[in-house]
Amino acid sequence: MREIVECVPNFSTSDAETVELILNEIKKTKNAFLLDYTFDDYYNRLVVSFVGSKKSMLEAALNMAFKAVELIDMRQHKGQHPRIGAVDVVPFIPIKNVTMDNCVELARKFGETLAKKCGVPVYLYGEAATKPERWDLDWIREGEYERLAEMIVKPKRKPDFGPAKLHPTAGATITGARKVMAGFNVNIGTADLKIAKKIAKPLHAKKGGFSNVKAMAAFIPEENITQIGMSITDFERTPLYRVFEMLKVEAARYNIPIVGSEFCGMAPLKALIDIAAYYLKIDNLTEDRVLEIAIQNAIKKEGVSE
Amino acid sequence: MREIVECVPNFSTSDAETVELILNEIKKTKNAFLLDYTFDDYYNRLVVSFVGSKKSMLEAALNMAFKAVELIDMRQHKGQHPRIGAVDVVPFIPIKNVTMDNCVELARKFGETLAKKCGVPVYLYGEAATKPERWDLDWIREGEYERLAEMIVKPKRKPDFGPAKLHPTAGATITGARKVMAGFNVNIGTADLKIAKKIAKPLHAKKGGFSNVKAMAAFIPEENITQIGMSITDFERTPLYRVFEMLKVEAARYNIPIVGSEFCGMAPLKALIDIAAYYLKIDNLTEDRVLEIAIQNAIKKEGVSE
Repeated sequence: MREIVECVPNFSTSDAETVELILNEIKKTKNAFLLDYTFDDYYNRLVVSFVGSKKSMLEAALNMAFKAVELIDMRQHKGQHPRIGAVDVVPFIPIKNVTMDNCVELARKFGETLAKKCGVPVYLYGEAATKPERWDLDWIREGEYERLAEMIVKPKRKPDFGPAKLHPTAGATITGARKVMAGFNVNIGTADLKIAKKIAKPLHAKKGGFSNVKAMAAFIPEENITQIGMSITDFERTPLYRVFEMLKVEAARYNIPIVGSEFCGMAPLKALIDIAAYYLKIDNLTEDRVLEIAIQNAIKKEGVSE
Repeated sequence: MREIVECVPNFSTSDAETVELILNEIKKTKNAFLLDYTFDDYYNRLVVSFVGSKKSMLEAALNMAFKAVELIDMRQHKGQHPRIGAVDVVPFIPIKNVTMDNCVELARKFGETLAKKCGVPVYLYGEAATKPERWDLDWIREGEYERLAEMIVKPKRKPDFGPAKLHPTAGATITGARKVMAGFNVNIGTADLKIAKKIAKPLHAKKGGFSNVKAMAAFIPEENITQIGMSITDFERTPLYRVFEMLKVEAARYNIPIVGSEFCGMAPLKALIDIAAYYLKIDNLTEDRVLEIAIQNAIKKEGVSE
């Protein structure tokens, strides 16, 4: 049975050449397959999604991280997305025939090796967290790269691997394990970041919004509009349609139209099913009722090859 | 490269024992895989969906048809869905590494063999049609089983295979080839079939509705409500959300609520994507941006096995 882990590393760069060199490390790795990558100037951030076996994921993720530490200088970095390092966050996600514990182990090995080889301090988060507060990426990222030097020396913020001292050009890295999540960005028809923040706030878990949702506002200079960037960590409990409808309600308050939206990274099928089921009131829609998945399952189950 | 054909035969029965014997023929066939089947009393109709290689599809479809001809007596048959025979309609659908022409050929072989072995008159429809008017299932089915004896002797209605004479217990059969379509049923909160018909009518292509859409109304006695049963033959051109929204508009005219809906058979992924993209205004959603499909494609493309 084939094992599949997904890894979605986030790097603090939008330089095309650096992006290419980082992505190249996936191509060089046997049994590692690139699914998707996005980067843009306003976040100044590269988000990569790739899959493969446990062994290949660890190998490729480490080589990408080494490359990023070599090429990215955080002292020069500006961007609207919170970050503390060149290799900002590296989650491992169980997809098939792999447990969450396997992914926790991958994160630990990744963190340990990165710290040892590059001297980058590493924090474990999510399912790999060693303390309850470290479950949360935002807690670890508090103060961002700019205040990392003062934060990292606090006993409560001692890194899980490496020195309690920021790497001058690479900052620090967060790695961990988590479930598949949905990244979803909604563009709204205003250039006013203050209003965008007012719309993002009531969606955000920590500010009284939906549990499982993080929402932030960013300005998109090319289009002179703003974007509500969201991550929905448990989209089965907090389905996207519900978050979207609430975003619409809040935007309507300021007469701001919804311009469009997009998944940041891959769209999980279950998230799409929940959207379709809600709006069309479909009673019995499950993943195995989707033609393409049913065919895959039927053929695989029987184990027949032609 | 594995070839995949889907076959979705419709039989005029809802007798559990008959259903089981018909489905058994799939199990007996190598490289044929059952995806789904539904049957109910009000339509008195069994709809099966199964996939496999060309050879296995032809073999299984024929054996299922032989079994249905043996067991079903159309003289006893009552049901709300239009039908002309025990083996009412047998479409072959290209899914992967198979052309529409391959499926036309399968339909011809199926029809020829069924006519020869059982003496059942067979019409070709859809992409396999031999005359333009026979493209349309409804044209062929006009008058249904009850008037088949008088219709079949008209020169324009000469069967493509077999005698121009109905088989007394099995009626006639329609076979052909077509693209994947979506079967979609919406339950509405009225027991009044007259109103349900008024809501179905403006959706139906031939009655001024959407091209690619057939819509009919049926009464569901168990729940004392009615159902708008639809088939959308080209759901890329006529997406489901559009049909659903128009159905809502028509139902609102009579103050009838939408109770729920369901796919009849499998839900094509592209249909779900179009629904999600419409309601959440998603700009860039394609099949290969769905996580489960992207993983499948990435791994297959590289052709690596572990």
